[in-house]
Amino acid sequence: MKKLWQGRFSEESSQLLEEFNASIGFDRNLYKEDIEGSIAHATMLSECAIITKDESKTLVDGLKQVLSEIEDNKFEFKTEDEDIHMAVEKRLSEIIGSEIGGKLHTARSRNDQVALDFRLFVLKQNKELAKLVLNLISTLKTISSSNLDTLMPGYTHLQHAQPVSLAYHLMAYSFMFMRDFERFISSFERNNLCPLGSAALAGTPHAINREVTSSTLGFYAPTFNAMDSVSDRDFALEMLFNISVLFTHTSRLCEELILWSSQEFGFISISDKFSTGSSIMPQKKNPDVAELIRGKTGRVYGNLIALLTTMKSLPLAYNKDMQEDKEGVFDSLETAKTSLVILNEMLKTTKFNTDAMLKACKKGHLSATDLADYLVKQKNIPFREAHHITGRCVAVAESAGLDLSDVGLLHLQSVDERIDETALDALNLANSKEARKSYGGTANESVLKQIEVAQKFIENALKLKI
Amino acid sequence: MKKLWQGRFSEESSQLLEEFNASIGFDRNLYKEDIEGSIAHATMLSECAIITKDESKTLVDGLKQVLSEIEDNKFEFKTEDEDIHMAVEKRLSEIIGSEIGGKLHTARSRNDQVALDFRLFVLKQNKELAKLVLNLISTLKTISSSNLDTLMPGYTHLQHAQPVSLAYHLMAYSFMFMRDFERFISSFERNNLCPLGSAALAGTPHAINREVTSSTLGFYAPTFNAMDSVSDRDFALEMLFNISVLFTHTSRLCEELILWSSQEFGFISISDKFSTGSSIMPQKKNPDVAELIRGKTGRVYGNLIALLTTMKSLPLAYNKDMQEDKEGVFDSLETAKTSLVILNEMLKTTKFNTDAMLKACKKGHLSATDLADYLVKQKNIPFREAHHITGRCVAVAESAGLDLSDVGLLHLQSVDERIDETALDALNLANSKEARKSYGGTANESVLKQIEVAQKFIENALKLKI
Amino acid sequence: MKKLWQGRFSEESSQLLEEFNASIGFDRNLYKEDIEGSIAHATMLSECAIITKDESKTLVDGLKQVLSEIEDNKFEFKTEDEDIHMAVEKRLSEIIGSEIGGKLHTARSRNDQVALDFRLFVLKQNKELAKLVLNLISTLKTISSSNLDTLMPGYTHLQHAQPVSLAYHLMAYSFMFMRDFERFISSFERNNLCPLGSAALAGTPHAINREVTSSTLGFYAPTFNAMDSVSDRDFALEMLFNISVLFTHTSRLCEELILWSSQEFGFISISDKFSTGSSIMPQKKNPDVAELIRGKTGRVYGNLIALLTTMKSLPLAYNKDMQEDKEGVFDSLETAKTSLVILNEMLKTTKFNTDAMLKACKKGHLSATDLADYLVKQKNIPFREAHHITGRCVAVAESAGLDLSDVGLLHLQSVDERIDETALDALNLANSKEARKSYGGTANESVLKQIEVAQKFIENALKLKI
Amino acid sequence: MKKLWQGRFSEESSQLLEEFNASIGFDRNLYKEDIEGSIAHATMLSECAIITKDESKTLVDGLKQVLSEIEDNKFEFKTEDEDIHMAVEKRLSEIIGSEIGGKLHTARSRNDQVALDFRLFVLKQNKELAKLVLNLISTLKTISSSNLDTLMPGYTHLQHAQPVSLAYHLMAYSFMFMRDFERFISSFERNNLCPLGSAALAGTPHAINREVTSSTLGFYAPTFNAMDSVSDRDFALEMLFNISVLFTHTSRLCEELILWSSQEFGFISISDKFSTGSSIMPQKKNPDVAELIRGKTGRVYGNLIALLTTMKSLPLAYNKDMQEDKEGVFDSLETAKTSLVILNEMLKTTKFNTDAMLKACKKGHLSATDLADYLVKQKNIPFREAHHITGRCVAVAESAGLDLSDVGLLHLQSVDERIDETALDALNLANSKEARKSYGGTANESVLKQIEVAQKFIENALKLKI
Repeated sequence: MKKLWQGRFSEESSQLLEEFNASIGFDRNLYKEDIEGSIAHATMLSECAIITKDESKTLVDGLKQVLSEIEDNKFEFKTEDEDIHMAVEKRLSEIIGSEIGGKLHTARSRNDQVALDFRLFVLKQNKELAKLVLNLISTLKTISSSNLDTLMPGYTHLQHAQPVSLAYHLMAYSFMFMRDFERFISSFERNNLCPLGSAALAGTPHAINREVTSSTLGFYAPTFNAMDSVSDRDFALEMLFNISVLFTHTSRLCEELILWSSQEFGFISISDKFSTGSSIMPQKKNPDVAELIRGKTGRVYGNLIALLTTMKSLPLAYNKDMQEDKEGVFDSLETAKTSLVILNEMLKTTKFNTDAMLKACKKGHLSATDLADYLVKQKNIPFREAHHITGRCVAVAESAGLDLSDVGLLHLQSVDERIDETALDALNLANSKEARKSYGGTANESVLKQIEVAQKFIENALKLKI
Repeated sequence: MKKLWQGRFSEESSQLLEEFNASIGFDRNLYKEDIEGSIAHATMLSECAIITKDESKTLVDGLKQVLSEIEDNKFEFKTEDEDIHMAVEKRLSEIIGSEIGGKLHTARSRNDQVALDFRLFVLKQNKELAKLVLNLISTLKTISSSNLDTLMPGYTHLQHAQPVSLAYHLMAYSFMFMRDFERFISSFERNNLCPLGSAALAGTPHAINREVTSSTLGFYAPTFNAMDSVSDRDFALEMLFNISVLFTHTSRLCEELILWSSQEFGFISISDKFSTGSSIMPQKKNPDVAELIRGKTGRVYGNLIALLTTMKSLPLAYNKDMQEDKEGVFDSLETAKTSLVILNEMLKTTKFNTDAMLKACKKGHLSATDLADYLVKQKNIPFREAHHITGRCVAVAESAGLDLSDVGLLHLQSVDERIDETALDALNLANSKEARKSYGGTANESVLKQIEVAQKFIENALKLKI
Repeated sequence: MKKLWQGRFSEESSQLLEEFNASIGFDRNLYKEDIEGSIAHATMLSECAIITKDESKTLVDGLKQVLSEIEDNKFEFKTEDEDIHMAVEKRLSEIIGSEIGGKLHTARSRNDQVALDFRLFVLKQNKELAKLVLNLISTLKTISSSNLDTLMPGYTHLQHAQPVSLAYHLMAYSFMFMRDFERFISSFERNNLCPLGSAALAGTPHAINREVTSSTLGFYAPTFNAMDSVSDRDFALEMLFNISVLFTHTSRLCEELILWSSQEFGFISISDKFSTGSSIMPQKKNPDVAELIRGKTGRVYGNLIALLTTMKSLPLAYNKDMQEDKEGVFDSLETAKTSLVILNEMLKTTKFNTDAMLKACKKGHLSATDLADYLVKQKNIPFREAHHITGRCVAVAESAGLDLSDVGLLHLQSVDERIDETALDALNLANSKEARKSYGGTANESVLKQIEVAQKFIENALKLKI
Repeated sequence: MKKLWQGRFSEESSQLLEEFNASIGFDRNLYKEDIEGSIAHATMLSECAIITKDESKTLVDGLKQVLSEIEDNKFEFKTEDEDIHMAVEKRLSEIIGSEIGGKLHTARSRNDQVALDFRLFVLKQNKELAKLVLNLISTLKTISSSNLDTLMPGYTHLQHAQPVSLAYHLMAYSFMFMRDFERFISSFERNNLCPLGSAALAGTPHAINREVTSSTLGFYAPTFNAMDSVSDRDFALEMLFNISVLFTHTSRLCEELILWSSQEFGFISISDKFSTGSSIMPQKKNPDVAELIRGKTGRVYGNLIALLTTMKSLPLAYNKDMQEDKEGVFDSLETAKTSLVILNEMLKTTKFNTDAMLKACKKGHLSATDLADYLVKQKNIPFREAHHITGRCVAVAESAGLDLSDVGLLHLQSVDERIDETALDALNLANSKEARKSYGGTANESVLKQIEVAQKFIENALKLKI
């Protein structure tokens, strides 16, 4: 079959062009959306009396057969078919004949067809990702629920700062992932508009009804301006960005998992199921999964900058540059989905070495702030002076080879006589953690509220029926 | 004044460190938010009886005086003050004495203070940008309203495709900018939560009330987990991304303005007010503004990738790397705001050369699709054959040195005798445009609907009182 | 076959891990380098008496058989083989038995093996790309040689500036591509050092000779520090950057080809072989190839930022993140190679419409600078005044509907009586072009020198025997 | 002073345009190069008899006065001067009068002037950065020289792998920085060509001698094609990339410094001079410098992608977009220079806690590989079996609560009776390190060779007289 558009041409396409131009190698991913869109279009055409009911039925039946063939792996994709739209249409015409088959093309162009297929695909994926993120939130919540009293050092600048609970630390990630969830859903809501019927760039003279196809396909409404509709890829940029932010979060979590599984930290043991060894060094157990997820941050950032670059400065309406919109999105989606699944499973099977965490709390004078606070609150000493007194107590502890939470009263009083026994309570690590009862703090009652928020979030999310 | 934290240190800071570490050079931009936050904090502290009413009043009055000094340019910023928080606090203590001044630090740390200041600033800017985008939508709408009948070539692949109206083409940009507006507002809505009271990383043992500061400062609610709150920069990433998408749109518009003002297109004349000349070539008039806006797309993409990179793999909670969060955001904001203002003004004063546009419509056989459609609809010829017949008519027109819209009936009938006089109506360029009445199309009735949508959008936006 | 490293593990790998971890899907591209490296290693081991000559021969014969099997498509790649190194080694052991097969692992680890394979591959590709770039330089030179007298407008700000020859304009691209060539070769030279023998991270206790493997494999010398060697990916970053710069150049050329093939410019006709049409609009002929190359700039930038991001902040030595180094490089290489080939072929078959170019020169008063120069040089008028007089002459020409190069002497003298007949020579477009004889200018003698430089460059490049 | 180019314009520039267009705020950095270039140009003009010797002298003297005024801070930069070129020229004309002052403009345009200034500036900075990198190499070499016997764990996947010396680990960074040095020098060499004399885009009709200005300014030769010369920014892209790679290296080093100064590692104590504390937590000492350098990786990557984006798809020759080329380069240069200086000083004053490093070596069975190697080499046991035996020995050690390097012979023989006393030598950590004598390995003799290479490198670099 010669290309339809080659009527005007006096020379055949170069083989180089055929291969360079073809998108069938990757846009075949869109087969389901392509056929779904064509069925909606054919149905609408008959409702608007542009084709007959019989023609519509023939088209729909034929399209369903093509769908079966693809899903049963009986469909052969060929480079010379250029793209998924041509591939489907060609096969359709083989099945039902080209006279009726050709009518599917009425009031439609490849420009709005690809805009529809790709948008439908991306919109669905927003929901898929939201679901996977929800699983992760749920897992973090579960682990947190049983680790309210697991003490660990809280860090700033990777230095020991104040004691916190493991529950509290993990819940921090829950709230990051809740924002990710919200961004995926928000992007879905903003972009759930149907470009079908925009035709090449200017609409169509046929008396179509875009409301019908829009609602059949589950969109909120048709898009407003056809020229914008065929050249808009904001929904894809949003997806690439939202995945990029997701990966800032997963890269931070994975960085911590890698640190925590080092010999120096020793806070966790990743399950053998999700670790690898070394063919050379018999003692090694490596946190490959966390490293790979961290490393894949690069590709998802890269895919974002790629599409931003491609879209820069393109005049309206459709330009062939835009064929470059899909591979990066497919890659980021695949990366995000597999990473979320394996991260979730890995977390579920990770052992937290609470003894090592507790032992680590005994380094770095984590409760120094509490001593200063005690001096201010109990002894009415100005903060600046309290800070200095505490500094000197730290020095005394260091020279005694002790953590501040383990020094005796005499040590403290050697610095300042006003210090009394209740200071020891303030310096106690568990007390320090429990003191931080402010909303959003690390005390159990505060963390329980956070878990409750997460629980409500999950419940509400499930009601969305995504 | 020695640094408060230097009590523990035995050596003075290197001068190199002082300069390298200081953020006062850029975070002074946040002075208003910093003082606003401190006033809310001081007020809450007294409401919660953590300090007295008198102390609170002294603090608030002192803070207001600092604000006046800064706004009256009487405030000297110094590198050794490190950052805006220290600079304000130091001055405050000079004014009201360090005993009360120091109490402002109660139940707060620089970590939540900077998180608050920066977030407040970015949230406000979301609204500022939304307003500027709205102005642009309004201008495009106004120009469109008076150019419904201005014919111009519609392009795909920068090739003449189908005739459209200038109104229709410009309205395409309106809808892009409406999505930009929505993204700015959506980001505001998602992130309008108050981190103040998170303290260093774990909350505070003081009996503060975060609801109070949150609502005083106009937030919807306090953030949920303090560790997340001091290390979250999603709101800044969203801002950088939303500006990046905005610039994909402005770069496309500016690319077209540059093309249109070339000698080859000649579609527009940019006002002398917004053009520059050449010191060498006396005849030159250059579209510098459009070029600069297009060129600035680079920096806004760069700022996005910069912060994504910085945030990658940072362990919780605050790390000094995050001090790198601000300059890029300030730069993108400044770039976006000045670009939106000047683009709007330039558009308002740009002259559209409708004759040149009309003349351009006579090249490239813009109504060829209409002839094919005519053959299908009026003569019941299958589309494939119609496409071929039209191809041959194009060839006849070309050999006669005419555009297809200008050939006579005899020319057309020499290709196919079935063609009759009504074909000439189909080939008429204005008719071609008017035929595309589908929702979202280029026909006047369709474009009027688009203008109405834009009008409603603006009205609703204004109701938001942003 | 269980994994060698699983001895230490008590649980089997999760299927999720197997798939997530496996790189065989893309690193199979490195099969040739992997086997080449193993042959060199086996040979060196026997030369150093670490294995026997017979063992070495058995290994080499076995490796050659594996190579044949892969090249004859008889080799089955499986996910459970993890990577190309394991896949080759496993098959080798099947062929020659695992006792001798296992000896190949002596004094080597996967860390230096992958560092070797990937570096070898990238180094070769530097030469491949250099060759393809050279073809393009050659084509541009050829077209230039026959277009010394083809006048066209020279542009700045996309505005007509001064007349130039097509030869001159195209030679500008030649010099960009020469720099690209130099960068590829420079990167090859800087990185042509052999990491083999670095072992896992610290060298090996075996008495190997790294000079031998290095020179066998065509490297200049072994790398200097094993820890750096297994964690260095500078050579890959350089490749990604050099391709990115190449694409700034091709994107500029393609932008011009797209502009030039528009109805407005009409400067070129791209061959039907390298154009596509529209299934809807029978008159369309689209410059898809140029658009796609321009669009692919996005992905090559994206691949660069991806690897930069991945490499950021990785502690020494090897981390699994680095497995993410290959796919982007493969993609950029494939993109660059196919783009260079098709761009070259397209250029060769592109028709330059010299009439349209000449006609365009009659717009925009291209020789205005020459009139000003004439006034300065011939009439001793200060430049500032000359600039003003010329400005007025332009105004007179515009009101007469003429280009400045077409006005008569009377017109000019109406502005300033000092202007005489020789001004008309200055205003002549061909004379204007020929006047710019400065080194590097657009006059024929200058352009011929440029062509000579390019010719010498090509000759010297060919002597490199790349 | 009205703008020279405004003769042709009927309306005054908008104030918005003035501000938006002006580059004087940042290109004033180029004042030295601008004046240097103008002096060379004026001198050449008189050598070529285009102006008189007297005029040339007047120009040069005037330019020198402007230079003094700027360096003495007596020069007022104003927005209305647009750019540094205009600012200097205006002041020059004030000093020497506009008649002679205006002659400086002969045979030159702002396009080649800015191309010259910026290139000169960037070329010099290549050398500056190379020098700073050299200092770092030297510091690393010095520290390494006195730490040949300092044992520390060598890591892969952040897991303990094999024992290495601190010297060896730090030398790995030396070799990264040597490649950085080479890239800066290579970029200098490739781009050291003079664009001056290219004029606006097409060369000049004046009989200038570009060889003269080129050699006066220290370039190797004039550039070859004027159109390329005014639109080439490859030299700036290379600088941005080379700094980006430098920051992959510094970010890795800083990541390690941060890890090493954590309570968990405790390998180093950064000097108080280069640390900061916390205003809240009296015990804190934070590695701010290392964090900031790591964080600044974001901005240097961002600046790279910014200019790549800006340059994408620009038609020839100069476009105003290119004014966006400078700020990012200035920012990356400033960032790189201050970071290199402070990193170097910080390293010099950092204390390495060799005891903690040694103690860490006792975790993770670092010499397991050596036991396996011993079994292969001394006992002729196949590697696979040796790997398994070692695995079991590791298990025995773990259950005894010992590191493999500390177990007794009986422990080992309980796993396999073939193991004899010499195994204990193999397991000794220092022996393990010293065994890796292969070229590039961690044994002292190998590291000494590396130090020698570095020493030679520095000596040769100093001979370059950069």
